[in-house]
Amino acid sequence: MPHAAGFLWNRRMMVNMTARGYATAQFMQPEPSKYAHAQIQEAQHFMLPEQGTYASHPGRFFFVKDRDTGCIFSAPHEPARVPVDNFTFNVYPSLICWNIECRGIKIELQLSLPVDDACELWEVRLTNLDKARKFLSFYPAFPLGLLSWMNQSATFDKSLNSVVADSITAYQKTKDYFKNKSLKDKVFLASELVPEAYETCQSVFEGEGGLHKPDAVTAERMSGSDASYENPIAAMQFNHELNPGETKTHRFLFGPAFDKAEIQRLKDKYLSASGFDNAQRAFKQYLAAGRGAISNMVSPDPQFDAFVNTWLPRQVYFHGETHRLSTDPQTRNFLQDAIGCVYIKPEISRKTLLKALSQQHANGALPDGIKLYEGAQLKYINTVPHVDHSLWLALFLDAYLNETADYTILAELVESKEDGKQLSVRERTDAAMRYLMDAVDQRGLHYILEGDWNDPMNMVGWKGKGVSGWMSLATAFALRLWAKICKDDNRDGTIFEEGAAALNAAVNQHLWDGDWFGRGITDDGVAFGVRTDDEGKIYLNPQSFAILSGAASKEQTEKMVRSVEEHLEGPFGVEMLGPAYTHMREDIGRLTQKYPGVAENGSVYNHAATFYIYALYGAGYADKASELLRKMLPGPDVKDYLARGQLPIFVPNYYRGAYRTHPKAAGRSSHLFNTGTAAWMYRVVVEGLLGTTGSSEGLRIDPKLPAHWPSLRFTRTFRGATFNVEVTRGTRPRVVCDGKQVEGGLITDIQSGKIYSVEVIVAETQ
Amino acid sequence: MPHAAGFLWNRRMMVNMTARGYATAQFMQPEPSKYAHAQIQEAQHFMLPEQGTYASHPGRFFFVKDRDTGCIFSAPHEPARVPVDNFTFNVYPSLICWNIECRGIKIELQLSLPVDDACELWEVRLTNLDKARKFLSFYPAFPLGLLSWMNQSATFDKSLNSVVADSITAYQKTKDYFKNKSLKDKVFLASELVPEAYETCQSVFEGEGGLHKPDAVTAERMSGSDASYENPIAAMQFNHELNPGETKTHRFLFGPAFDKAEIQRLKDKYLSASGFDNAQRAFKQYLAAGRGAISNMVSPDPQFDAFVNTWLPRQVYFHGETHRLSTDPQTRNFLQDAIGCVYIKPEISRKTLLKALSQQHANGALPDGIKLYEGAQLKYINTVPHVDHSLWLALFLDAYLNETADYTILAELVESKEDGKQLSVRERTDAAMRYLMDAVDQRGLHYILEGDWNDPMNMVGWKGKGVSGWMSLATAFALRLWAKICKDDNRDGTIFEEGAAALNAAVNQHLWDGDWFGRGITDDGVAFGVRTDDEGKIYLNPQSFAILSGAASKEQTEKMVRSVEEHLEGPFGVEMLGPAYTHMREDIGRLTQKYPGVAENGSVYNHAATFYIYALYGAGYADKASELLRKMLPGPDVKDYLARGQLPIFVPNYYRGAYRTHPKAAGRSSHLFNTGTAAWMYRVVVEGLLGTTGSSEGLRIDPKLPAHWPSLRFTRTFRGATFNVEVTRGTRPRVVCDGKQVEGGLITDIQSGKIYSVEVIVAETQ
Repeated sequence: MPHAAGFLWNRRMMVNMTARGYATAQFMQPEPSKYAHAQIQEAQHFMLPEQGTYASHPGRFFFVKDRDTGCIFSAPHEPARVPVDNFTFNVYPSLICWNIECRGIKIELQLSLPVDDACELWEVRLTNLDKARKFLSFYPAFPLGLLSWMNQSATFDKSLNSVVADSITAYQKTKDYFKNKSLKDKVFLASELVPEAYETCQSVFEGEGGLHKPDAVTAERMSGSDASYENPIAAMQFNHELNPGETKTHRFLFGPAFDKAEIQRLKDKYLSASGFDNAQRAFKQYLAAGRGAISNMVSPDPQFDAFVNTWLPRQVYFHGETHRLSTDPQTRNFLQDAIGCVYIKPEISRKTLLKALSQQHANGALPDGIKLYEGAQLKYINTVPHVDHSLWLALFLDAYLNETADYTILAELVESKEDGKQLSVRERTDAAMRYLMDAVDQRGLHYILEGDWNDPMNMVGWKGKGVSGWMSLATAFALRLWAKICKDDNRDGTIFEEGAAALNAAVNQHLWDGDWFGRGITDDGVAFGVRTDDEGKIYLNPQSFAILSGAASKEQTEKMVRSVEEHLEGPFGVEMLGPAYTHMREDIGRLTQKYPGVAENGSVYNHAATFYIYALYGAGYADKASELLRKMLPGPDVKDYLARGQLPIFVPNYYRGAYRTHPKAAGRSSHLFNTGTAAWMYRVVVEGLLGTTGSSEGLRIDPKLPAHWPSLRFTRTFRGATFNVEVTRGTRPRVVCDGKQVEGGLITDIQSGKIYSVEVIVAETQ
Repeated sequence: MPHAAGFLWNRRMMVNMTARGYATAQFMQPEPSKYAHAQIQEAQHFMLPEQGTYASHPGRFFFVKDRDTGCIFSAPHEPARVPVDNFTFNVYPSLICWNIECRGIKIELQLSLPVDDACELWEVRLTNLDKARKFLSFYPAFPLGLLSWMNQSATFDKSLNSVVADSITAYQKTKDYFKNKSLKDKVFLASELVPEAYETCQSVFEGEGGLHKPDAVTAERMSGSDASYENPIAAMQFNHELNPGETKTHRFLFGPAFDKAEIQRLKDKYLSASGFDNAQRAFKQYLAAGRGAISNMVSPDPQFDAFVNTWLPRQVYFHGETHRLSTDPQTRNFLQDAIGCVYIKPEISRKTLLKALSQQHANGALPDGIKLYEGAQLKYINTVPHVDHSLWLALFLDAYLNETADYTILAELVESKEDGKQLSVRERTDAAMRYLMDAVDQRGLHYILEGDWNDPMNMVGWKGKGVSGWMSLATAFALRLWAKICKDDNRDGTIFEEGAAALNAAVNQHLWDGDWFGRGITDDGVAFGVRTDDEGKIYLNPQSFAILSGAASKEQTEKMVRSVEEHLEGPFGVEMLGPAYTHMREDIGRLTQKYPGVAENGSVYNHAATFYIYALYGAGYADKASELLRKMLPGPDVKDYLARGQLPIFVPNYYRGAYRTHPKAAGRSSHLFNTGTAAWMYRVVVEGLLGTTGSSEGLRIDPKLPAHWPSLRFTRTFRGATFNVEVTRGTRPRVVCDGKQVEGGLITDIQSGKIYSVEVIVAETQ
């Protein structure tokens, strides 16, 4: 039975649904909230990678009982886990579907969401596949878990034909009462058909039989228990007589609500065949609006095509629209998600930038997190200072301007709460870049303090002396990009160009280790990420950014690429550092306490990999870049995904690495879809692999056809125009647009609304 | 199958173990910590009442498989829940035992703790009850849950013959690293016998079979999986051939450890027959040291005798020794637990007082919580200001001095961190009482601000105007007690006597409601807890304290007692307020959002009941007092306990009340043993029912024999002396000590070490 999962999201919520029936769902009000909970009080926390399920995990379970035989099974699979005759699980961008056959009964499940409500739409069709009439009982059973230690109850509301659970979000301080008053403290399961009986007390539902064989299901009739303070469950019983071939269709709504009027409103809007149809149609339109700059890609790799055409832009759109369902995204993530959105909905990206700058500190630095609503709190890792947030500004603007040429953004005035000034984006970015240039030590290397990207290296420089090689190189890269934008903006960017050069020189002087660049120098003056280290000998990020920043010469680049190949590449991608740390190094910190191969410690950290790939495309290592890009996609090499029957519907933030030291677990996915990887991977596809990069002049076409691909087709939308691109191999490489050869592949004078036909011939041996 | 539970505790830890095999255990380091966790991240929180268990709850499970038949069951009961032929569950003060027979196999389980280590000692005896040889596999399986999202792993350590799980307590701020370094991040299950095989990865252990029928148990042999980052389980397999009647004995240690050396130390000390014996002997000695002032009680009510002789002092001792396993007990609780300890180990009580006063504020008030270790944080409800903490000082000193006559305590110098002064207990208590006297409004009533006892009434006076009737009366009571102590201490306490009189007069003027005292007056000047209210018409606490403070005349008392009878008494005791609130009253606050009948809203809040009972004994309502006292004890009237097979081994903080409006759930126990109820109930037994109250002069003997008791025997220890008391009925009431009639029942000139024989004759009709 597969452990695969699909997730759906809309503007209000997200639901991650496993093939077996377990579910994790949350909505915003404005803090992320749940409506079906674990059985115990859960810590409010960021999403954890590799989270398992367990018998009493929240889920959406549908029990079916043959009243003649007494046989029971539960669909999709949990919690009864009865072997079935047929089981299919399909995840579509707007729909999750199951098709299950068991003992002559077919049960089809469909889960969808509306666009603008936090509400699950479930359609269940029961069909009698046998030749004889069947007497069935059918039971939706959704455990609600511990809603609140202060007050919780549930009962069946006849007038709403719904199980309605009520609770009061627990609080201790008086002022929290007023905040909590507007929360959706009700949970409901509304049915279109009228049930025979119900159960709302989970312990009564389970009885001695347990969740896998509940007393309420083995009984002739549910007892109608009400939960008063006990953990509730929304369970109903329906009795059906089905003739051979006959189908019975149920529809349910499930979700949080503020009051009964809201439940009624949702029922009126959705709880009917036409309501479900309309919701699904609207949802497809909503998704279509986030379709992305690439479509109709056809390569010899259909999985990759589906991923690029559908799933990757969907993931990027999700990030851009929902900000990962957080209230205070890390500034770095917030800007990177916006980079992805540049190719999907640049208007979202524009707003994101202005929002970030409105919270700029008076000294020019961006804060550790962006508060998305008045009263939001910086939480978790955002309470720990990181030095890199400001530099992503330049990376964002580079991508945004390449794609849109919307230079008006630079003149946009933004008031920051902290400095109270109305300054232009141009001035604010200047200030951020100057702030970055100043934060260097006497060697000219950038301080790291309690962390840069990635977060978990927190003790390199907490005493104020340690420096970061990566941060120095990334700053140099940002400064170069900003200098270029200044030039395009008819300003003098020399000072930033010089800043970049100084940083590059300092890194070369202090951190070139013979075959690669070191990662940093600790408070005590010890260089790390160098050949003399036993663990954490080489880090990927400094190499990627040394290429991007221009610090690395051609010779150095060649050495670095070979070193990465030797130490970091593996069957599941390129690891972030190697060998993985196995014990604490107090002068580096938290990173070294992460389990080897997990998260940042020696994992295939896909986000870091995207920068390396991006750099490789730029530095003339296109074949290696394409090879590593393909490995990011869950596929045959990523054993966990296939073993679990997972479709490649999103790129996770990491696969377990430490392939050399922990081969057994290597390749396993984090299952976390919240990651800047999506944005940057999309950029790598659009600008790297497909080679369709915008600029102030127009669109340059320069696809990097992988060695084993004979040809490729795709559609690129760009500034309102559509480019149908065909790539083939030939002896005379060239780019032809609407029959005319284009010099250097640069198409200029692009007209919005127009459809261009582009033929590209690349060298046989490219 | 019963849901009964027993709990064991020592100086380091507590384990609450259900008959079915679920366990909740925690130890201090110094924050309360777990070593076996839920499968998901649990919120760090105070203990919740009425907490249920669920399929993946932490537990101690022992699977047994008959290798010939393949039949599997798990002892005690979870998670397989196989019906058994015999099941007994016994909780002793120092031991929890099961005796289970299933399909010809007997399995006896014993759980005990050592005195001074956080470590469970499990002894398991397997016996073949059949006439034929049996081939068995035996599997201890202890799920460890999510230890840390940062790092967790587990494997079998051959040299320790133990499953050892390792983790790193997750942290984000650098400074927390240094705090966490000393935490016990290892969990181990050490076996005396060498296992055949093991499993340490929970998902491998369960497989598709699930926790109730794990793949690892149905398989011929466990696979030896190691958990790396996955949630671990400590599971081992032992294969035995048992001849008819043959017994195999296993011993295991289970608990947290800092390092392997600690595991080795614990193994050396305990993991053997003699190690277990020694630990059990030492533990019994430890418990004996907390035996309490009453023993050998023999009444016509053996359950009550067992409770008074053994279980109640054990609960009081637990609170006194461990401070409820908290790091920052509420000051009120801290002092009340010490009141109980006065009758058990007054030296603990003395230390508690000095500790509390060392954290007195400069204005004389005691803080909301007492930090037990350097660096402890006030958490949860302790971050919300409550006005009553200081008054418990006088109640404490009254009980302490009555019992010990240790007036030297008043001269003891205590330095408070905040004021930096060396002041005597006498001066500090003066300051606290003066602080209380000053916090009154123009009517002379005491402000309530965001709460008094009980906590959840948080919006009566948060704007600074509302007043508390209870707080005014309780302050008057405290002032009277302190005035009396001043007198005994040869000081002039007139000012406190006057303060008490003024408060009593003000309450009589503003809050006497005709038949009872009102609870308070809100910020907006609305009296509540009065006859015109539909809900919360009458509160118990103001009546109790009006009697204790002297505010109530005889006539008023009679009216109050009748009103309480009418509105608050029920089959499960006396409710704290009635009718229970069913909806929010914003001028009162959080209390009114508690579920009716749960916790403070309309429950039989035993702690409040004890004060009423204490007052009734003093006011000449002894029979009613005894009747209500008996109802506090889990017994035939408390339906949930008996339905669940629960022994009366502790008094819970509440039984569900709202008997009139929610009869179905009424009587259910909170299952929370952390409560000041225990202390004050013990005082009520010692001084009220048994009528053995100390004073500066000696020991007064005045038992209040309940009407239906013909006689009573008990031993009272007091200031080192032993009093064997026999109470009978007769026509000529008198107290005879060692053959001599004692005037007014007051025994003076008590000699430590001496054994006194006391005969008491009470009136036939008392």
